Parts: sequence; structure tokens; C-alpha cells
Amino acid sequence: MIVADFSLVPMGSETSAGKYIRAVYEMLKESGVKFMPGPNSTSLETKTFDELFDVIQRSNEKLAEMGVKRIVTSLHIDYRLDKEISIESKMGASKIK
Amino acid sequence: MIVADFSLVPMGSETSAGKYIRAVYEMLKESGVKFMPGPNSTSLETKTFDELFDVIQRSNEKLAEMGVKRIVTSLHIDYRLDKEISIESKMGASKIK
Amino acid sequence: MIVADFSLVPMGSETSAGKYIRAVYEMLKESGVKFMPGPNSTSLETKTFDELFDVIQRSNEKLAEMGVKRIVTSLHIDYRLDKEISIESKMGASKIK
Amino acid sequence: MIVADFSLVPMGSETSAGKYIRAVYEMLKESGVKFMPGPNSTSLETKTFDELFDVIQRSNEKLAEMGVKRIVTSLHIDYRLDKEISIESKMGASKIK
Repeated sequence: MIVADFSLVPMGSETSAGKYIRAVYEMLKESGVKFMPGPNSTSLETKTFDELFDVIQRSNEKLAEMGVKRIVTSLHIDYRLDKEISIESKMGASKIK
Repeated sequence: MIVADFSLVPMGSETSAGKYIRAVYEMLKESGVKFMPGPNSTSLETKTFDELFDVIQRSNEKLAEMGVKRIVTSLHIDYRLDKEISIESKMGASKIK
Repeated sequence: MIVADFSLVPMGSETSAGKYIRAVYEMLKESGVKFMPGPNSTSLETKTFDELFDVIQRSNEKLAEMGVKRIVTSLHIDYRLDKEISIESKMGASKIK
Repeated sequence: MIVADFSLVPMGSETSAGKYIRAVYEMLKESGVKFMPGPNSTSLETKTFDELFDVIQRSNEKLAEMGVKRIVTSLHIDYRLDKEISIESKMGASKIK
């Protein structure tokens, strides 16, 4: 199981990225992939690398369709093989008891 | 105003990092810096670079005190000069209307 | 054209990652993808997202085969549509004239 | 010893960032900090977190002076306590023997 964080920065556009973020979130909702918005990045939970990379590619294509000419993507992937992980389990791991 | 995301990966330790994450969160709570936990990273809101970097350095020092011998930090900083930003305002920007 | 930087951090292993880095580089050489080693990350030049993601997935699988139980990947992708980019062109852009 | 990679993405500017990269490199040369340009990011070698963060802050200030209104910084820090590391030693670790 994979939990990843990603963010897209459009270059050559305005300083505000709200409309791009909303377009990506609409795409994510339609995709059925489990995601969780954060202030600086979006978390994704997928079973496979294919599912994850499909979403990253489609996010880039969405911005390109909207006219963005250069896109910088940051992606952090947590791929764990000794234990099931999920957005929920990882949120719980940070709880201060 | 600065909104940043960071995560620390300990090398040479176990696969689980729960105890390190909890130690960093306790330090963050005592520091008074505004923060928000996420599944893969932690968001910080600070007025200055000094405040931000102080927290990053202290997180590294905390893990070093706990015996970690190699620490990889990932940090993404959103530094915006044309508009006030905060964790709250950035969470709102992603709302699908 | 895509120019990307990536690094893999193994968790639950030793502090040294030399053997994993060398295994990934051997895989990269066989793959035919254009790459350039750096001190903290490796740069990749690919025509498509598919090519890029294939290499990232295979790097993760290589470490998993070697027994690593948790892998954190950082990936930064520069996807530019208004101009051809390459590792070489991007190295040149930083030249101080 | 610390080896780090960083990159700055200007928002609200053109798609090309060459002039900003050159300005940051001129600042880096004057600072005396050891650095190495890469296609997507710049590597830094410093003795302390203070030295590292000073350079990151000054890079942001340089772009702000040049009129950039929003700057996204990505930073990856390798902080190792069990062994001396340097840009040179880390480049050597990736050699395929």
C-alpha cells in the first residue's frame, strides 16, 4: 500500500493557483482515488504505483489543458512492505498519547 | 507569511517512525509554532524564515538525541509576498464550490 | 520533454545506502533512460511520464527485492510545454556569463 | 556535515527562470558556501544548519528583490552523524565499480 503527497506549481501563470487546485480536486473526486487535501500538498492512498502515477500524470495534463506551459510537480511516496498503511493509519501514528 | 510542509526520515533505525514523530510533535507543541499534522508530512505556519528553520533544526536535533545517526529532511516552503497566507487560508483555497 | 530529480531513502536498513544506489544505477544503465547522478539525487530525462514513472517504480522494486521493507521516494518533475528541455539545456541555464 | 539539494520556483513570473537562477548562483559564489549546480536543483555542503538556512533565506530574498511575489522552495537535507559526508564523498558513493 502506498501513501503519497504531491503538489503542482504552475509557472508562467498568476501567483494564485486556486483555480488549478480546484480543477485537480474535481478530477481526483471523479477518479475514485482516496485523497486528502492539505494546506501545501495533497495526500493520496493507492494500492499500486500505476494508480498513483496515473493521477499525477492526469493532474499535469489537466493544468496543461488549462493553458499552463510549465508545471513543477513534487511527489513524496511512502511505500511500505512490512505493514498495511493508509492515510488513516498514518494520521493516527502522529497522535500524542 | 510562510506556510511550509516538512517530513523527517530516520535512516539506520526501524521501519516504524511513530516514536520520532510523537517526539517532534511534543517539541512543536511546546514551541508555540502553528502546525498541522498530515499523513506524510507536517504543515507549519510562521511569520519568518528564522522561526521556520529553528523548528526544522530542532526536529533534527531531537532525533539525533534519540540516537538516530542519519536524518533526511524534506521541506517545501510557500513564501508569498502579495497576500497574507495561512494554513487556514490555504485549506480554503482547495474547496470545491 | 521531462527533466526530473529523484531519490530513494530506505528505512529499516543501515545508515549507508551505497549498495542500493549502485543497484539502481545499474538498472538505469540497462534501461537506456538518460540520467545524471548528483550528490543527493539523480536526474532523469524522459520523453513521457510513462518512461519516467517506469524507472521510479523499478527503482522501488529493486530495493524491495534487496530486502528493504520501507522506501521513501522524493520526486521533482519539470514538465515544460513551451520549449524543449533536457538535462544539458538545464545545466546550461545556470551558467554565470 | 550537511549535504542538501534545493530549488526555487517563482510563481507569477515567466516560464523561464534563467535570470533568477543566475542571480542565486552569483549570491552563492559570493557567500563562499560550497555548491554544485544540477539540472533541476543545486547541491549545497555546509557544516551547520545555520549556514544552510542562511543561504536558502538569502536565495528567497534575492528573488523577492527582483520582483517575484511568490516563491516555492524545495529542500532536501542529508544530515549524517556517524560519518563525515561531502558533495564529493556522496558523488563517489554512486560509482558503479
